Amino acid sequence: MTWDQLKSYHSERPDSLCPGHPEIEHEGIELTTGPLGQGIANAVGLAIASKHLAATFNRPEYEVVSNHTWCMVGDACLQEGVGCEAFSYAGHLKLGNLTVIYDNNQITCDSSVDLTNTEDVNSKMLACGWDVIDVFDGVNNVEAIVSALEKGREPSREKPLFVNVRTIIGVDSAVAGQAVAHGVPLGKDNVKEMKKAYGWDPERQFYIPSKVREFYSELPARGGQWVNEWNSLLEEYTEAYPDLARTFKDRMTGKLSGNWESMIPKSFPSDPTPTRKSNNMVMSKILAEVPTFMIGTADLTPSVNLTYKNYEIFNPPTLQPISGSKGSCAGRYIHNGIREHVMAAIANGLAAYSPRTIIPTTSSFFMFYLYAAPAVRMGALQKLKVIHVATHDSIGAGEDGPTHQPVELAALYRAMPHMLYIRPGDSEEAAGAWKCAIEYDGGPSMISVSRHAIPQLCGLTKRDGVVKGAYVLREDRQTDVTLIGVGAELSFTVNVANALKDQSIKTRIVSFPSHKLFREQPLEYQRQVLRRNEGIPAVVIEPYVSLGWERFADAGVNMKGFGHSLPGKYIYKHFEYTTDSMAKRVQSYLRDWKDGRIGRGEFVEL
Amino acid sequence: MTWDQLKSYHSERPDSLCPGHPEIEHEGIELTTGPLGQGIANAVGLAIASKHLAATFNRPEYEVVSNHTWCMVGDACLQEGVGCEAFSYAGHLKLGNLTVIYDNNQITCDSSVDLTNTEDVNSKMLACGWDVIDVFDGVNNVEAIVSALEKGREPSREKPLFVNVRTIIGVDSAVAGQAVAHGVPLGKDNVKEMKKAYGWDPERQFYIPSKVREFYSELPARGGQWVNEWNSLLEEYTEAYPDLARTFKDRMTGKLSGNWESMIPKSFPSDPTPTRKSNNMVMSKILAEVPTFMIGTADLTPSVNLTYKNYEIFNPPTLQPISGSKGSCAGRYIHNGIREHVMAAIANGLAAYSPRTIIPTTSSFFMFYLYAAPAVRMGALQKLKVIHVATHDSIGAGEDGPTHQPVELAALYRAMPHMLYIRPGDSEEAAGAWKCAIEYDGGPSMISVSRHAIPQLCGLTKRDGVVKGAYVLREDRQTDVTLIGVGAELSFTVNVANALKDQSIKTRIVSFPSHKLFREQPLEYQRQVLRRNEGIPAVVIEPYVSLGWERFADAGVNMKGFGHSLPGKYIYKHFEYTTDSMAKRVQSYLRDWKDGRIGRGEFVEL
Repeated sequence: MTWDQLKSYHSERPDSLCPGHPEIEHEGIELTTGPLGQGIANAVGLAIASKHLAATFNRPEYEVVSNHTWCMVGDACLQEGVGCEAFSYAGHLKLGNLTVIYDNNQITCDSSVDLTNTEDVNSKMLACGWDVIDVFDGVNNVEAIVSALEKGREPSREKPLFVNVRTIIGVDSAVAGQAVAHGVPLGKDNVKEMKKAYGWDPERQFYIPSKVREFYSELPARGGQWVNEWNSLLEEYTEAYPDLARTFKDRMTGKLSGNWESMIPKSFPSDPTPTRKSNNMVMSKILAEVPTFMIGTADLTPSVNLTYKNYEIFNPPTLQPISGSKGSCAGRYIHNGIREHVMAAIANGLAAYSPRTIIPTTSSFFMFYLYAAPAVRMGALQKLKVIHVATHDSIGAGEDGPTHQPVELAALYRAMPHMLYIRPGDSEEAAGAWKCAIEYDGGPSMISVSRHAIPQLCGLTKRDGVVKGAYVLREDRQTDVTLIGVGAELSFTVNVANALKDQSIKTRIVSFPSHKLFREQPLEYQRQVLRRNEGIPAVVIEPYVSLGWERFADAGVNMKGFGHSLPGKYIYKHFEYTTDSMAKRVQSYLRDWKDGRIGRGEFVEL
Repeated sequence: MTWDQLKSYHSERPDSLCPGHPEIEHEGIELTTGPLGQGIANAVGLAIASKHLAATFNRPEYEVVSNHTWCMVGDACLQEGVGCEAFSYAGHLKLGNLTVIYDNNQITCDSSVDLTNTEDVNSKMLACGWDVIDVFDGVNNVEAIVSALEKGREPSREKPLFVNVRTIIGVDSAVAGQAVAHGVPLGKDNVKEMKKAYGWDPERQFYIPSKVREFYSELPARGGQWVNEWNSLLEEYTEAYPDLARTFKDRMTGKLSGNWESMIPKSFPSDPTPTRKSNNMVMSKILAEVPTFMIGTADLTPSVNLTYKNYEIFNPPTLQPISGSKGSCAGRYIHNGIREHVMAAIANGLAAYSPRTIIPTTSSFFMFYLYAAPAVRMGALQKLKVIHVATHDSIGAGEDGPTHQPVELAALYRAMPHMLYIRPGDSEEAAGAWKCAIEYDGGPSMISVSRHAIPQLCGLTKRDGVVKGAYVLREDRQTDVTLIGVGAELSFTVNVANALKDQSIKTRIVSFPSHKLFREQPLEYQRQVLRRNEGIPAVVIEPYVSLGWERFADAGVNMKGFGHSLPGKYIYKHFEYTTDSMAKRVQSYLRDWKDGRIGRGEFVEL
């Protein structure tokens, strides 16, 4: 941070290190916590990462991982649901390496906090399994604050610590203790008055008195010494534990151990398989043997199929649950409880802690990734490497009904920058999806899979096709229409193509697992796949709403509303996704197309 | 419910009243609570509605509104953030008319609850301002349960009640107390064993013993009597308070008092205005005079501009906050705290309680509607009439940076069925947006507005145009390109059109505030507005990602990634939304277009 940069605070400089909201891309910023409450969850993720890596790599007298996580929060963070989830889960996990400092000024944008929140915060924290220390005069009693922080990092600590520091917002200004001090700049006059109150020169700005400068002058040297000490420790560790040290260093540089790609099966069973099971076939060996992966779930272990042989749970070693296994801090399987939002926000913390040392993976039903969406977005914004595994991604999930059947959610993730959203169409494509996700370094991925068994298009689907986002599944030079298929319903295109053949309509089929990957292909490839510029219309079949497909298709067999609670085997019929109905609609569309009844650029919902 | 319908449980019948997940469309279902945790918030909304209408309409000896809200929850609901928000806020509001019954079986999908949650639930509820009653043997001690419920509805109750009932899942089956009893059907054999244990005939299904039938036989008569009693009370009330009774009945039928439309100004100031301020100009008179509206905010009162003259806060009358006004149960302004998700879920409860008697309105920053999205979705799924007001809907919001600058969120709301998402382009269009939202009866609306002042396109914009989703702002029969403008950046199209004119390029301009409304117009109107079938390319200007615009435009000046923290007046330049840059890109595109370098159906990001 240069003096010049410091003065760029809130300025017009796009490269300012001191903008209104600094983000992770600025040096010294470990995480963009984003909208309120997520920072607590991120801190929980950082503390888990630290505990986990310490348990994995530390050896007696060699504490190569030993940092403490400090988290500053305000009144709002305590009210947000994701903050509540984080407090509850951190207390359960007994994260003694986490201290939360609550800047308790009792002011939010609208007024004093008691207008909307009158709970007993300390009691709530104690009930959640935290220790609590009060600092009653947070404005003047620096000693009490320091003492509390020292207690926070006592090595013997067995619970996370909540330091409740009573403060006054805008202290010594004319708006001290008022809501306007929160949302509105203090203004020049007010700042002058404050400076006067402190005995400072009210006219000087960006001025550091020599006393302050002296106080901090030894900081760089102290920091440098710590770095040197740690480097020496690492050298000794390397001598004492050469194999472990090699793994540790590999992990820190993001190198995956073993030849992970060779662990993905070369082929898969040909009988109908839910793609959530395909996930397990693709990944169970990698998950078992590559310790970089930490697998999270929001209470859907039996549904998401991401366990592996002898998997160990991340939990306090002292905890013996009534049912379920005992865990340890070396465990890599995280049961987040029924807390989707915190799961994704914790994953961001895991990913931001020494980037690429841990690849956090989360899992839940696809619809619940709407609960998790604010944290998934923050992962995308920060380009954090997190893999989200979303099952039950189709109306075919059945009984659970429209609340659990996604029809519009894919639009969000297809629109989200940096987000690699993939819907594989069978086990072979699932292999390709995971390959992309593991290799993708520009942000989070989401692998969207089916609850129900879907046909395997053996010999047609290609994992290397997935890498390009879309590819030709079946070509026909002379053709009347391109059918685009996706994910759980990819096989529908094959059925419709066969039905249309009986009507002497020639088709070609494109499998389209990822918008993002396809958009990144050269125009030439895109034209080869879609052939719309040859005058061939493209019809997409996907039981989601059409929004977003208009870019690649001329018409769509898409959902027009929400789903319905019906057993999976009946629901496709209910929404007219039978081969016969779809084929008829495509046929009718092609007649309109040929007769010129469809205007240029008019997407038609069939 | 017929016998035949009862037997359709989990069947293939699409009209089954007993599907896996019954929704609001089925008689007797008051709300679809949807994914976990939202039900608690919905219950809080119902309880607020009841308290509010009672305070508004009841008179001594005439309790025309007096119901109690009962809410059954499981272990998962207590863990979800939205559930935590709801508990905290309900305790603050002292909702004595709400009883939550906690089916405490300590089992979730993955295992026993203590695998992931070991907090002291009762202490947490007490800290949140609830009363707690324990029922230790919820399997056998029916008396204790009844006694607790009776205590719940004691009229003197000043806090909501949490009844902690210990139960055993799958009691008396072979999987009693196990996680499989939660997620997997018990199976025929297991059910037979249970029936044997109860001394029932294991072979009989759907059998109601005469003892049970007798026990319930008087229920219809009892219910009928209550209805009669209430009708008589209403008659007497009508005689005693004829004006109040008329309003009450009007409210129940959804009739808005007064001629609300005439309260919207006929014209607006011509100086640049933030559309969040336009909202207030459009609505403050209506909000003040039409008591059907209840206005919620998540701690952004100074930002959202939805207060009105002498507005009263909904809060316990006994509460005097340190700063801010005292409230009452008759108050119509709801300070939800910093709890966006619960705000939207409470609004669903308010809307579902005697539908159209209350029109709940929520307000926050647009990006925070990602926090609220799961509840907004449930409102859409249930077609509940809720109006969401989202400000800071543009990168132009500035300093707060990419975390607060939406670029992809509109795609979700444009994709969501039943959802009326509108981005008005100035005050005149804001008037149209509110007209649409107030008249729309098919689900929630969202009015998406700017933080910053935007030019007023007086004489060009038309509120009646908004009703059609898109309309021609400026026509030119001989034209080279249609420019599509939206919301906060609508005026950019006019600037670009003027710049292109200097280059002898003829333009026409379309204002496009709502995808949904435009899609509902006849094809003929759509063609008149877009004229793409005349071979005129359309270019949309909106600093969101392009996804969704490919349906209406051939190219777009859209965002390709997230925003940046910069003061509002510099940010457009940073992302090349200057008139000059945009005009050049459109010009270059038109050359490519004319030279045939753009293939059929190829959307181009400029």
